[in-house]
Amino acid sequence: MGDEINENCSTCETETSGTRTAHHDEKIIKELINRLNRIEGQVRGVKGMIERHVYCDDVLNQITSAQSALDGVSKLLLEKHFKSCVKDRLSQGDDEVIDELLKTIFRMKR
Amino acid sequence: MGDEINENCSTCETETSGTRTAHHDEKIIKELINRLNRIEGQVRGVKGMIERHVYCDDVLNQITSAQSALDGVSKLLLEKHFKSCVKDRLSQGDDEVIDELLKTIFRMKR
Amino acid sequence: MGDEINENCSTCETETSGTRTAHHDEKIIKELINRLNRIEGQVRGVKGMIERHVYCDDVLNQITSAQSALDGVSKLLLEKHFKSCVKDRLSQGDDEVIDELLKTIFRMKR
Amino acid sequence: MGDEINENCSTCETETSGTRTAHHDEKIIKELINRLNRIEGQVRGVKGMIERHVYCDDVLNQITSAQSALDGVSKLLLEKHFKSCVKDRLSQGDDEVIDELLKTIFRMKR
Repeated sequence: MGDEINENCSTCETETSGTRTAHHDEKIIKELINRLNRIEGQVRGVKGMIERHVYCDDVLNQITSAQSALDGVSKLLLEKHFKSCVKDRLSQGDDEVIDELLKTIFRMKR
Repeated sequence: MGDEINENCSTCETETSGTRTAHHDEKIIKELINRLNRIEGQVRGVKGMIERHVYCDDVLNQITSAQSALDGVSKLLLEKHFKSCVKDRLSQGDDEVIDELLKTIFRMKR
Repeated sequence: MGDEINENCSTCETETSGTRTAHHDEKIIKELINRLNRIEGQVRGVKGMIERHVYCDDVLNQITSAQSALDGVSKLLLEKHFKSCVKDRLSQGDDEVIDELLKTIFRMKR
Repeated sequence: MGDEINENCSTCETETSGTRTAHHDEKIIKELINRLNRIEGQVRGVKGMIERHVYCDDVLNQITSAQSALDGVSKLLLEKHFKSCVKDRLSQGDDEVIDELLKTIFRMKR
């Protein structure tokens, strides 16, 4: 393979295509998908409320609850990411992951 | 009184059932629904990314973008609500709408 | 006085200089000032922590607590503003206050 | 062992007293202190505005700007913390720093 892609990070191995991937265990993937299914349902629910002319205050609170649910998904994913890819890339001296992660965290904070 | 709508607030009439409703014009409803359709697509997109083991950092940023889109829907809805129900209820001396709205705004801020 | 400034809003009268002012009662002013004194002390406390090389995590949490305290001041002020100036300007048909307030609320949300 | 600092983390040495400390370089300390001095001034400025009955909307925006300035201090501190203590503790297998940092980040996000 000649200049083989350096499988440098056991967790987010850079595949031959050069893109990083994530390798969560099945349990986490299932948990994330379940939560996202519920959020998808909440968004559909908000659409229904608007179509049924539900009082705006109730709709606004339903949107806020969908956003909090998305927050929960981000938090779980950030934790898993930190404890796998970030930790592994740092242990291999790949400090770029710090700036990458900080940018993502500051976007989340907005 | 027959089936007359209790006209105490021209915009968010309290129907005989006592629940408030909202009356946005069709253009706003269409705009809100379009945005929510896109957000629903974004949430489905996040699910797909997780199923395809996309690198977590990219997934986190996609979730943040769905949250910003939801922020946009809240802002539009808050403006319409303010310029219709809130204004009308205040003009009829119904100050309860202030505390109701402040609670909702503070939840949005979290 | 000829073209006298229209004392149109009993609460946030536009003084002859044309600038709006606020008229909170003494109790609220005292409450706001007390809270701001404490926050000033918190900010000074953070400076001291940095000068004493206190562990960053502790400093970060102290900054977050000062921000929450500022949130509390904003909430109290927003409520008083809403129940005085905003309400009065709306009752006099001055709808500009809605866009002004929404802009401020959306800035607070960032 | 005499009065030797326990060198288990070159950056945030745990002193004999068991508390972690931070060791930013002078330039960063000066930058953080300058920013905090300005924020202290902003908080004092808000107090003055309230005492002078400045229109609430202007005061609310001044508070928001002080909060953004505090955000800036947190971001700078988080970056330095990440690139020193967090990185060093992870490199020594001290994974507890991950949960500690995530808790702090989630508090910042509220």
